[in-house]
Amino acid sequence: LSRASTTPVSGAAGPSLGPGAEFDRIRAYLAGLAPAEGVRVGPGDDAAVLDDGTVLSTDLAIEGIHFRLDWIRPEEAGWRAAAASLSDLAAMAAAPAGILVSLALPGPGAEGEEGGDPGRELMAGARAMAAEAGAPLLGGDLSRSPGPVVMDVVAVGRTSRPLLRSGGRPDDELWVTGRLGAAAAAVRIWTAGGRPPPALREAFARPRPRIAEARWLVEEGGAVAGIDLSDGLAGDAGHLAAASGVRAVLEEAQIPLHPSAGPGLEGRELALRGGDDFELLVAAPRGLLEPRVEEFRRRFDLSLTRVGGLSAGEGVWLLGPGGEGPVPVERGGWDHFRAEG
Amino acid sequence: LSRASTTPVSGAAGPSLGPGAEFDRIRAYLAGLAPAEGVRVGPGDDAAVLDDGTVLSTDLAIEGIHFRLDWIRPEEAGWRAAAASLSDLAAMAAAPAGILVSLALPGPGAEGEEGGDPGRELMAGARAMAAEAGAPLLGGDLSRSPGPVVMDVVAVGRTSRPLLRSGGRPDDELWVTGRLGAAAAAVRIWTAGGRPPPALREAFARPRPRIAEARWLVEEGGAVAGIDLSDGLAGDAGHLAAASGVRAVLEEAQIPLHPSAGPGLEGRELALRGGDDFELLVAAPRGLLEPRVEEFRRRFDLSLTRVGGLSAGEGVWLLGPGGEGPVPVERGGWDHFRAEG
Repeated sequence: LSRASTTPVSGAAGPSLGPGAEFDRIRAYLAGLAPAEGVRVGPGDDAAVLDDGTVLSTDLAIEGIHFRLDWIRPEEAGWRAAAASLSDLAAMAAAPAGILVSLALPGPGAEGEEGGDPGRELMAGARAMAAEAGAPLLGGDLSRSPGPVVMDVVAVGRTSRPLLRSGGRPDDELWVTGRLGAAAAAVRIWTAGGRPPPALREAFARPRPRIAEARWLVEEGGAVAGIDLSDGLAGDAGHLAAASGVRAVLEEAQIPLHPSAGPGLEGRELALRGGDDFELLVAAPRGLLEPRVEEFRRRFDLSLTRVGGLSAGEGVWLLGPGGEGPVPVERGGWDHFRAEG
Repeated sequence: LSRASTTPVSGAAGPSLGPGAEFDRIRAYLAGLAPAEGVRVGPGDDAAVLDDGTVLSTDLAIEGIHFRLDWIRPEEAGWRAAAASLSDLAAMAAAPAGILVSLALPGPGAEGEEGGDPGRELMAGARAMAAEAGAPLLGGDLSRSPGPVVMDVVAVGRTSRPLLRSGGRPDDELWVTGRLGAAAAAVRIWTAGGRPPPALREAFARPRPRIAEARWLVEEGGAVAGIDLSDGLAGDAGHLAAASGVRAVLEEAQIPLHPSAGPGLEGRELALRGGDDFELLVAAPRGLLEPRVEEFRRRFDLSLTRVGGLSAGEGVWLLGPGGEGPVPVERGGWDHFRAEG
């Protein structure tokens, strides 16, 4: 059982996805894909962009994989599913236009512990999250499920200036919004049979996509590349680096850990590989964001932290807490199809 | 276990969906939904339409609900899932712009009977169907599944003149493309342990969304309302009638049964309630389509048949083979959440 967000199908041919069995599968699925008329950004980024600026993302949330209904309420699972999909729009610096929700539910007689319809709460949660992001419910699909609750949330938005994974260049700085590791810490505690404290639980159950923050980072802050943190900082930095054709170097001492995510190595591991943060990782030319950090914090009540930079090369590397290294980060992020052991 | 297509989330407040437990759920999920800025058609039709003419549909295909991999190959299941979603664009007379595919697969060690990755075939089938419809793969999502294979196909298109369910008026005629009941007949044979003949199997495994046909019916034929036949003629006529605020009267003797779908009452039942035909049901003002039937048949190699008409009132009624009745059709189409017994 895992807790990781799913990963957008992306990659096309060439070096645009980080390593991993999941991404090997995706590369196989995309074999022979050619550029298509009317498509500005196809598979290979957080969301697709059509020539007219329409941005599209779709994100699965499956009971037993992405959430468990003994951990969070159906309403929270719905919120989380919508937030994860809208976070892909944020990663493109797009403005949401709406969501569609596909929902598969166990049939009559298996409708939740109190006999109610969990679909109603799932939908209410998804609608509430989307409404907060300015995205009305446009449609969806409803089916019976032979097993788990399945949600797939489609997010639709617009942008005239998409923030791509591929815009990073050597000497750019890497910045992240917020503090990392809290959602993964909650999952670790649940998995061990415990009950996470409210701050960690909330981070998992009610993530907020960084939509306005992303637009500010592009329009005011000069960000040139970006991705949302769904697989963990290491994995997502790997995707950005691969798409940009550069190396990402993370500075361990700079990674902003959530204060409740556990100290030292554990917090670092949760931030690097835990996933589900739904914060943003952006690349910006050197020196542009440093003078704007306090303005960003005041405007969004959120931290903005330089965590490293890009250089010539490939892969994700980590500078130790005393500046030693860098050493390559072995593998990044959650992988749905990694072989066990 | 069933074989029915899922049903677009639709309905909003008011009498815009036919009866049934599934549609009662959808009505509950949509409680309080208000018209939204930028949205021309929200929940309540085959697909959503934004003000700029972008059309969006999403359609689940779940192993054990919509298909079985001992009935059809993964490549066919992928084709079918994409066809079902694109059929919702056809129902709006939209031109496809692309698809996104969300895919959840059993993890390593449970990857199909020959040990291959069924995801590769599923994606190849979906891509092949979409390519035939002029829709490139734009993106998607990949996840592990704790049980069944799950696909959700998002279809994106454009129209300046959407064909809505709500455009029907009393005295309009009802027309259907193609011949009905073949896919449902295949399912009936599989369910009874048999092997359907090739024509029936093909109807289930390789449906073709009526995209060009729909645009012709609007632009040349004067169609004013439409829906695709995914739930069965009775159920889908019920949705069209409810959305249009009228009664649909079907003439039993006119319903075009597939020649292999079984004679008499059985064929009639499969056409009325079987679903999965992915043909079109349209309403057009009296007399417009009759002179164009042969032109349609030649152009699309497909029949076009008047099956009844609209009148003041509500619900779906059936005129018997000798013109007796009409009698109300008790309930229409597949219902994912109908109580058993």
